Amino acid sequence: MANLTPYLAGIGGEMLELSAERARARLPYGPHLVGDPETGVVHGGVVTGLLDHTSGMAVMGKLRTPMPIATLDLRIDYMKPARPGETIMAEATCLKVTREIAFVRGLAFHKDADDAIALCTGTFILIRTGLV
Amino acid sequence: MANLTPYLAGIGGEMLELSAERARARLPYGPHLVGDPETGVVHGGVVTGLLDHTSGMAVMGKLRTPMPIATLDLRIDYMKPARPGETIMAEATCLKVTREIAFVRGLAFHKDADDAIALCTGTFILIRTGLV
Amino acid sequence: MANLTPYLAGIGGEMLELSAERARARLPYGPHLVGDPETGVVHGGVVTGLLDHTSGMAVMGKLRTPMPIATLDLRIDYMKPARPGETIMAEATCLKVTREIAFVRGLAFHKDADDAIALCTGTFILIRTGLV
Amino acid sequence: MANLTPYLAGIGGEMLELSAERARARLPYGPHLVGDPETGVVHGGVVTGLLDHTSGMAVMGKLRTPMPIATLDLRIDYMKPARPGETIMAEATCLKVTREIAFVRGLAFHKDADDAIALCTGTFILIRTGLV
Repeated sequence: MANLTPYLAGIGGEMLELSAERARARLPYGPHLVGDPETGVVHGGVVTGLLDHTSGMAVMGKLRTPMPIATLDLRIDYMKPARPGETIMAEATCLKVTREIAFVRGLAFHKDADDAIALCTGTFILIRTGLV
Repeated sequence: MANLTPYLAGIGGEMLELSAERARARLPYGPHLVGDPETGVVHGGVVTGLLDHTSGMAVMGKLRTPMPIATLDLRIDYMKPARPGETIMAEATCLKVTREIAFVRGLAFHKDADDAIALCTGTFILIRTGLV
Repeated sequence: MANLTPYLAGIGGEMLELSAERARARLPYGPHLVGDPETGVVHGGVVTGLLDHTSGMAVMGKLRTPMPIATLDLRIDYMKPARPGETIMAEATCLKVTREIAFVRGLAFHKDADDAIALCTGTFILIRTGLV
Repeated sequence: MANLTPYLAGIGGEMLELSAERARARLPYGPHLVGDPETGVVHGGVVTGLLDHTSGMAVMGKLRTPMPIATLDLRIDYMKPARPGETIMAEATCLKVTREIAFVRGLAFHKDADDAIALCTGTFILIRTGLV
């Protein structure tokens, strides 16, 4: 499946699903993602990047007419460290699209979405070229 | 200067300053950081990761007794795209440390801190081993 | 039902439900809540106060041992203006409690939770007196 | 000074300054603002409402052409409880205005801005009637 940025392809992620209902991505563990060498825990920025990307994909899946978007702001709540060695899944849903703004909620987890690694809430701006 | 996680070292970042007043880091541009291949703009997750790391360093610089910390939550406001080809600077200040929580504000920019790429506001939890 | 602060009682709010699964509150419309006199739309700070309170109640409902809590940080996304003349409902769920922190998500709406006025995401700190 | 919403006028707040550089407001203490009757501490929602309002005023002060605005999202970090009996000050600065979005940072404090009660970071949407 496409829709991968060089950054996310470069860290080894892939998209699993992309629809109006949700976007899903996965990122297998690797030593290049580690934030703390003593514990092997993945860097928070990696989780954030994965959630940012998946959230943007959720907006793309919701838009009837494709157009460029940009993250306006993003909040990440880190609920527990990712476990070393395990794949990280991300899911996001675009809850609403106005003329200019899209609202998204998402989460990252290993196997159980009820046992989240991190939550995200974000807004994206729609770049209506030709009109703006 | 040390204080680099494998993740940030891996993407080519480095720390420039670390004190109780602030932490400063820089991340030179590279094709492995790109989020949009058409424009060459760096992925938002990279900026977030850099700000997350620099914010954590600002907490470490403020603590009198070193101890493990973890990002609790982080908000990033993306004010403009990073310019392709240019180094990204990050600065963060730890505004307050309570027994359990540290509060940080930071920003990312190219050359002029008044023309920010992104703002960040975050809280970090202090992990007082032995007591907790 | 109790669990009302003077502030929320004073603006006319009430709690409808309080359990480990969720907290629910309602706030009838009134002219004292208006932010924009031309439109009669309720002030955003009122919605925020209601969500903050309901989120805190969701933490209280989840805790097995009651203890003081304080809002650490809160993000509110305003998805649409509240309609003048209509009651605002708020619901919140505490997703996780660690030793020190509780994570909450909530939303405000009129009648249909799928057509939200605002989303909230927050963290609360648990104040373990005697230990801290 | 004008620029008061019914909600903020109703809780007793007033604007002190409004310019392109910043907006400043004050809110004297009163029993109608209390969140916890045992301590007399003001409800967090009141601080949020004050910061939300002051942030919006900072945007208005920055705009060359007045136009309606709406809070898009807001993050509040509660750094310490407001002291019972004391006036709360709020200051906010609009850091940047794009065609559609304004970015604001602010804080609430009693007398010393370096000893904040709460920080806020928010985005506001500009409502360009006639064009949108």
